[in-house]
Amino acid sequence: MKNKKIPRPTVNRLSLYLKCFSDLAASNVEYVSSEQVAKVIGLNPAQVRKDLAHFGKFGRRGFGYHVEQLKEQVSKILGTHRQWRLAVVGIGNLGRALLMYPGFTDRGFKVVAGFDTDPAKAGWELDGVHIYLFDEIVKVIKKEKIDIAVIATPKEALDAVMAKLHETGIKGVLNFAGRHLLKDHDIIVRNVDVALELEQLSFFLTNKGSGNG
Amino acid sequence: MKNKKIPRPTVNRLSLYLKCFSDLAASNVEYVSSEQVAKVIGLNPAQVRKDLAHFGKFGRRGFGYHVEQLKEQVSKILGTHRQWRLAVVGIGNLGRALLMYPGFTDRGFKVVAGFDTDPAKAGWELDGVHIYLFDEIVKVIKKEKIDIAVIATPKEALDAVMAKLHETGIKGVLNFAGRHLLKDHDIIVRNVDVALELEQLSFFLTNKGSGNG
Repeated sequence: MKNKKIPRPTVNRLSLYLKCFSDLAASNVEYVSSEQVAKVIGLNPAQVRKDLAHFGKFGRRGFGYHVEQLKEQVSKILGTHRQWRLAVVGIGNLGRALLMYPGFTDRGFKVVAGFDTDPAKAGWELDGVHIYLFDEIVKVIKKEKIDIAVIATPKEALDAVMAKLHETGIKGVLNFAGRHLLKDHDIIVRNVDVALELEQLSFFLTNKGSGNG
Repeated sequence: MKNKKIPRPTVNRLSLYLKCFSDLAASNVEYVSSEQVAKVIGLNPAQVRKDLAHFGKFGRRGFGYHVEQLKEQVSKILGTHRQWRLAVVGIGNLGRALLMYPGFTDRGFKVVAGFDTDPAKAGWELDGVHIYLFDEIVKVIKKEKIDIAVIATPKEALDAVMAKLHETGIKGVLNFAGRHLLKDHDIIVRNVDVALELEQLSFFLTNKGSGNG
């Protein structure tokens, strides 16, 4: 598959490109130069041209790149041309914030269920999303055809949550529990650690001149 | 400065090493092998040895690496041996979750103030943290010697927040507003975009075999 050849740093930038092309398309811009894209994203134009070369041939001499085609192509590579169905596990402060996060729907993600071990929270509706008791997770994830679980539990609950998720056949996990999950054979895991982001910021504040994060 | 020579991918892993060495130190483990560290972090031992070589000479033939010394050194490089003072800007769902996030204090970060434009929220105390009206941000950040602002406002407010922050002399920003901030001359910025993390997960789910995130 040709997507396998896209280098990891380019993959990390795909979301920025998608955002840039989506904004340009929304403003009815038809063609864009690598210099313009570079300026919006904060890269150098040579890097942009190198990245865009992975997405196919959309340049037209003297015109630049075709915005709509690039947008479609990047969206297809990222897999966001389809809608992903999400569940949030752990309805504490962070879980509630993620469940009601306004930025998901625009970008192809739909939260369809929440789970918590606290019986007092089961039955809640938050922004139209039903909260279930954690015990029902296997049944509900299968029934609702949920693709991705967003984990916002305390880190002590992470092993129990992952054990249950393995029974559901879920494909992906975004882990906010604050403990790094290693590679998993059946579930694709992505770890988000807020304190880690602050540590990286601390590094750049401590070692000024090492470049901006 | 020697820290400038640490390659970016190693910098990205410093937090994982710090976590690993802190846990080992807490369990009174004195020496550790690169194989053991590799297993905990999910890397290969050769990569671990290469990374650790940037932190100085802590290996002892037949004993492995000295845990406490490595922990101190990584913490010094990351800048987390000191305490950073934080403010959260925007006290919506996400801002509240960040303000009360239990993982910060353990790792050298202390939230000392919150800000919101809503007069109804000014005067609140959340987990012992005072919420101020946004208009007071310049005065309070200077008085409280706040180092880092965590922005959790809607993206529409981001420009106004950054303009005010430039008046405060603040050093760093962790941006959760959902719009990517470019490099800034005076403030070191780190962007966290939850939807972007989901897009990256979407990529790996769509292109299975491209490796795990």
